[in-house]
Amino acid sequence: MARESVTHRDGHVYEFGPEMEPVYEAADGEAVTITTIDSLNGAIQRDDDLLEEIPEEVNAATGPIAVAGASPGDVLTVDIEAVRVAEDRGRVVTTPGFGLLHDDPEIKHPATRITEVDGDDPADGAGDRIDFEGIDVPIEPVIGTIGVATDGETISTLSPDDHGGNLDTTDVTAGTTVYFPVFQSGAMLAMGDAKAAMADGEMCGTGAEIAVEVDATLSVIDDPAVPLDRPLLDTGDAVKTVASAETLEEAVELANRDMLGLLAHHHGFSRTEAYLFSSLVGGLEISQVVDPQVTARNAVPSEYLSVPF
Amino acid sequence: MARESVTHRDGHVYEFGPEMEPVYEAADGEAVTITTIDSLNGAIQRDDDLLEEIPEEVNAATGPIAVAGASPGDVLTVDIEAVRVAEDRGRVVTTPGFGLLHDDPEIKHPATRITEVDGDDPADGAGDRIDFEGIDVPIEPVIGTIGVATDGETISTLSPDDHGGNLDTTDVTAGTTVYFPVFQSGAMLAMGDAKAAMADGEMCGTGAEIAVEVDATLSVIDDPAVPLDRPLLDTGDAVKTVASAETLEEAVELANRDMLGLLAHHHGFSRTEAYLFSSLVGGLEISQVVDPQVTARNAVPSEYLSVPF
Repeated sequence: MARESVTHRDGHVYEFGPEMEPVYEAADGEAVTITTIDSLNGAIQRDDDLLEEIPEEVNAATGPIAVAGASPGDVLTVDIEAVRVAEDRGRVVTTPGFGLLHDDPEIKHPATRITEVDGDDPADGAGDRIDFEGIDVPIEPVIGTIGVATDGETISTLSPDDHGGNLDTTDVTAGTTVYFPVFQSGAMLAMGDAKAAMADGEMCGTGAEIAVEVDATLSVIDDPAVPLDRPLLDTGDAVKTVASAETLEEAVELANRDMLGLLAHHHGFSRTEAYLFSSLVGGLEISQVVDPQVTARNAVPSEYLSVPF
Repeated sequence: MARESVTHRDGHVYEFGPEMEPVYEAADGEAVTITTIDSLNGAIQRDDDLLEEIPEEVNAATGPIAVAGASPGDVLTVDIEAVRVAEDRGRVVTTPGFGLLHDDPEIKHPATRITEVDGDDPADGAGDRIDFEGIDVPIEPVIGTIGVATDGETISTLSPDDHGGNLDTTDVTAGTTVYFPVFQSGAMLAMGDAKAAMADGEMCGTGAEIAVEVDATLSVIDDPAVPLDRPLLDTGDAVKTVASAETLEEAVELANRDMLGLLAHHHGFSRTEAYLFSSLVGGLEISQVVDPQVTARNAVPSEYLSVPF
C-alpha cells in the first residue's frame, strides 16, 4: 500500500475545536506523510516583506486526520519518523506588539530576515543548514503547531492548551513520539507552523518558519494505565510532560504535577517521594514565552522513566 | 606555594551586602580550595529529621574571599576546576510553605529523604552516585549559592539577584567559568549550598544538599569589553546569561536582553539582528522556581558566541 500523503492543499485549519471534519481517515497504526505550509502562508519571501501584524489566519495546520478507533479517554500516539524542509528558505520575523521584547525601542518591529537553505539540493528538502546573515545554523526542524480536537473550547492555532496546538516545543521533531489525550472520536490530528531551527523560548515570536514534510505513524492506545490530561513527549533520551498556561509559573506547576503522576506510577513512589525525586534529575524546561499562553516542560531522563502506555 | 584552603570554619556569611569583611585575600589568578557545609548546617542526618521551617541561617556561604585588585566595574572570573562531595550523605527535603507544590495536600511538608553516597570511599568524596530509595543517581554537583558583595542592598543567602547569591543553577559546577560584576573593592566571593544532584527548577525546594570542596581559580578582568550587570556562565559548550527576578517572565526577559548585548558585540549585529538570531539557537532555560526571586538563563552554544573578556 502506498503511503498516504496529506497536504496543506487537501485541507488545513486555523482553529482546534470540538467538532472537526477530517480530510483523511487513517487506520490505527498507519504511517502517513503530512505536508505543511509555513506559518505565514508564504507571505514573507524577502527581507523587505514585513509582517505589519499577526494575520487572522496564521499557523495553518494540515488536516485534520481522523484515526480509526480513537475515542475520548484514549491516547493518540504520533511517532515522528522524519521532518524534511520542503522549500528553499525560512523566515525569522518580528511584528509589532508580539514577542518577548516587543516594547524594546532599539528593536525594529516589524523586521524580517530570510534564512536560505544551504547544502545538497535544498529543493528536495535535503539542505542541512540555513544561513542567518552569513552564519550557518544546522537545520533541526521543529513542528510548532500540533494538536487534536478539543474537549469543548475552540482555540486558535496561535495558542497552545491541553489539546496541543501552538506548543512551539523544540522536541517535537524526528525521533520523538508525541502523546495526546483524545477528546473526540477520531482524535482529529492537525499540524503545521514548522521551523528549520528554533531556540527554546522562541523569543522574537518565530523560529525560521518553513514548509516541511513529516513522516509519522499514528496509533491509538485504549485504556491508558495513567490518565493523560495534556501532551506528553518521549524523545528517546527523556520523557517530558508539556503544559501551557497564562504564566510560566502556572505552566511549570502543571508540568511538574503531571510528572509526579508518571514517576509515582513507574517507581511505586508516594506523591511526596515523586516530588523529592523530581527535584534531583532532569528538570523544568521552557518551550515558548510568546504565544497567548506560554508552554513549559518537565523532563526526566529515560533511565528513570518510561511512558506507561 | 601550597594551595590555600578556605573552609566554612574559617568564616561564612548568611548575607551578601555592600560591606563584607574578608576571611582571606587571594592574589589575582590564585587557585584556592573552598570547603562548604550543607545548606542546612548539618541539621538533617536521617529521614526522620524534619525541617519544620526554613532556618534564619540557611545556605552558609564560605568566605568572603577578597581578590586583590578587583574594583567596581571590573569582572570577577571564577574558574571552577573541581567540585567534590565531602560527606557520606545528601538530603532532599520539603518544608511547609516552600517549594513549587507547597500547597499540594497529597505532598508531605515537611518530609526528608537521605541520599547516601555510594561508590568508592565516599568519606574521601570519591563516591560517584547517590541513592534515592534504591535508585542510583549520578553525582553531578551544583554550587547553589555563589556571589559577591552587592551594590548596596543586603540580600540573604536564600535569595538570588544581580550579585549572584542563591542562583541554584545546575551549570555552576566543574568545568564552568562564572563571571560576576564587581560592585565593591575585592569583589568578596562567597559560596555554599551545594547539592550532589539537582533538577533544573529545584521544584521541592532543595537538591540533595551536601558539603563539598571546590577547586577554583579567581581572577580579575579590568575594563571589560562589554559591561556586565549580572552573572554570566561559560560551560565550555555554551555561554549563558543568568538573571533573577520576581517572576520567570521578568527573569527570562532580563536574560534575553543581556544575551542580545553579547551577540551584538560578537557578531557586529544590530540589536534587531541579535534578537532574531537569539530565537534560532540555544534558548531560555530555568534555574530555579522556588527562591524569593526565581532564576533563568539564556544559553547560546559556544560555536556562536564566546565571552568577550
